[in-house]
Amino acid sequence: MRVSLRDVAAHAGVSVKTVSNVVNDYQHVTPAMRARVQRSIDALGYRPNLAARHLRKGRTGIIALALPELGNPYFAELAAAVIDSAAAHDYTVLLDHTGGRREQELLVCRGFRARVIDGLILSPIELEAEDLGDRAENVPLVLLGEREYDLPYDHIAIDNVAAARAAVRHLIGLGRREVAFIGARRGRSEPAQLRVRGWREELTAAGLPSDAGLVAATDGWGHADGEAAMIRLLDSGRRPDAVFAYNDPMAIGAMRALHARGVRVPEDIAVAGFDDVVEGRFAAVSLTSVSPDKEAIGRLAVESVLARLGGRTPAPRRVRAGHRLAERESTLGRAGAFGAPGRDT
Amino acid sequence: MRVSLRDVAAHAGVSVKTVSNVVNDYQHVTPAMRARVQRSIDALGYRPNLAARHLRKGRTGIIALALPELGNPYFAELAAAVIDSAAAHDYTVLLDHTGGRREQELLVCRGFRARVIDGLILSPIELEAEDLGDRAENVPLVLLGEREYDLPYDHIAIDNVAAARAAVRHLIGLGRREVAFIGARRGRSEPAQLRVRGWREELTAAGLPSDAGLVAATDGWGHADGEAAMIRLLDSGRRPDAVFAYNDPMAIGAMRALHARGVRVPEDIAVAGFDDVVEGRFAAVSLTSVSPDKEAIGRLAVESVLARLGGRTPAPRRVRAGHRLAERESTLGRAGAFGAPGRDT
Repeated sequence: MRVSLRDVAAHAGVSVKTVSNVVNDYQHVTPAMRARVQRSIDALGYRPNLAARHLRKGRTGIIALALPELGNPYFAELAAAVIDSAAAHDYTVLLDHTGGRREQELLVCRGFRARVIDGLILSPIELEAEDLGDRAENVPLVLLGEREYDLPYDHIAIDNVAAARAAVRHLIGLGRREVAFIGARRGRSEPAQLRVRGWREELTAAGLPSDAGLVAATDGWGHADGEAAMIRLLDSGRRPDAVFAYNDPMAIGAMRALHARGVRVPEDIAVAGFDDVVEGRFAAVSLTSVSPDKEAIGRLAVESVLARLGGRTPAPRRVRAGHRLAERESTLGRAGAFGAPGRDT
Repeated sequence: MRVSLRDVAAHAGVSVKTVSNVVNDYQHVTPAMRARVQRSIDALGYRPNLAARHLRKGRTGIIALALPELGNPYFAELAAAVIDSAAAHDYTVLLDHTGGRREQELLVCRGFRARVIDGLILSPIELEAEDLGDRAENVPLVLLGEREYDLPYDHIAIDNVAAARAAVRHLIGLGRREVAFIGARRGRSEPAQLRVRGWREELTAAGLPSDAGLVAATDGWGHADGEAAMIRLLDSGRRPDAVFAYNDPMAIGAMRALHARGVRVPEDIAVAGFDDVVEGRFAAVSLTSVSPDKEAIGRLAVESVLARLGGRTPAPRRVRAGHRLAERESTLGRAGAFGAPGRDT
């Protein structure tokens, strides 16, 4: 049988109102009283009716999270971070899968399910700034990811240019002089792609080439795209001594191509990726990668949505989550004995 | 401005009722009329108000999907299949992350958000049959995954015993005689784990050993668990000539351990996994794996939920989705030139 507020009150020897105050986390409860009620809650296994709590505030308790592709482990790990962070605020997450298609992203933004959600977290791929201009304002929107928009919405992201520069600087520091980029998006201007920009800036600053022959554009961002791009680069006659890939799946696809061609990683070509997904740590040659603080991104996104509920309208913020470079065998080699986790800078 | 039914009717020169019939997919509309209205819908960019459509039927248009871990690519790929299949029925998916914890699975099952969802798809890990016995029946529940329950709920799964036997048969057919199993769950009786059972049945039928020394139990099911289990097996003095892992991340973790120890795959030890996640295809040595038909599992799960809405209560069904064995380099070697996709049986 379901344990009620009344049962908890009787067990703790306090009023129902006091239990309600504790459950709803009101401030005017002494720590001692809070502890006493909490002991009864634990003893009886009481669970507050979250849906009812949200409804009393005119909310649904649901945040929508719209991601381009769940098959990419970065987004799966990010989704887990958002779900866990939302749960800590008694929120649940409705997951949307846009496929990175503009039409689907538009649909999500225009609030086609506004009645069911309290807020929306979107990681856009194709969406343009003007698509968001005429958006109804009733549901808070928080943007994630590499694209930058000059729009009055919170945007949570790492500093993609600085992160890309750190990865390229690491490769240059190892003595590499021909650093290719895999995963420039076909049909997308370079300034829109911050990682390409960071790659070029760092090479230019070092007086090293960053010409078009070192850039492999792709249509997609999966393992197979990275593999195919690496093969095209090798067949182009150009022989880079390092590769920086837009993301880890593409870097792993590139390593597969190099392995198949008998090119050694990192002796002949060093490889660095972006996202630090689990898979890269367990590649036969473990992958050096830019590691965004996914937990922070998920947490900041949820907090940004919640900060806009209840009529509060803080000024739009651009929030930077942290990143670091996880250095592993694909650039350092196996000098570190097996099991060495790699230096993290 | 939002395009209305009325706008579409005016554009097509038909009544609002006719447009409504087309939008709601009623049968008594001629193909010619349907095409005429559809042309106006396309021309004006009309979007039906899905939420309103569901509400008229007393539904929310939301199915909850509760999975143990999104970080495991199998579940991420499965989630994408469920989301896509739900979208085809104008349904959206609310994603839950149980962490495989019994308490969280219980919470999900007992319908703590019954007011927001029309149905629940759950892939349980820890849940016991008695936990589901006292469940309120108002929201249809469909179970996924390896665990078998004697309960009146639809259950969508592949034949895990047959699939495991096929993988082990493949290894035996290649001349392997000491086939280890990685990923038996600590503290879980063997009959509850169909893949261990299939492994043992096939070895027994072939007159080969399947003693406890060949089974590596683990607490978790990730890459690191597979790596650690493989190291324990190698250090135990037992030297298997093949390994069958509970899932692909564990198989990839095991391959990483073998690579680090200088053990060749498949020459010294052949490795087979389960789930056929994208990552396995791009390992330095591509992974042989049991490939469940994830698209079918996602589709059948959504269809099972929808079949129980609207007062229809078909008898509970155990639905088998298909599987095949994707044979790749980790068992066949590199005999097939690079790029050969491997035989699929």
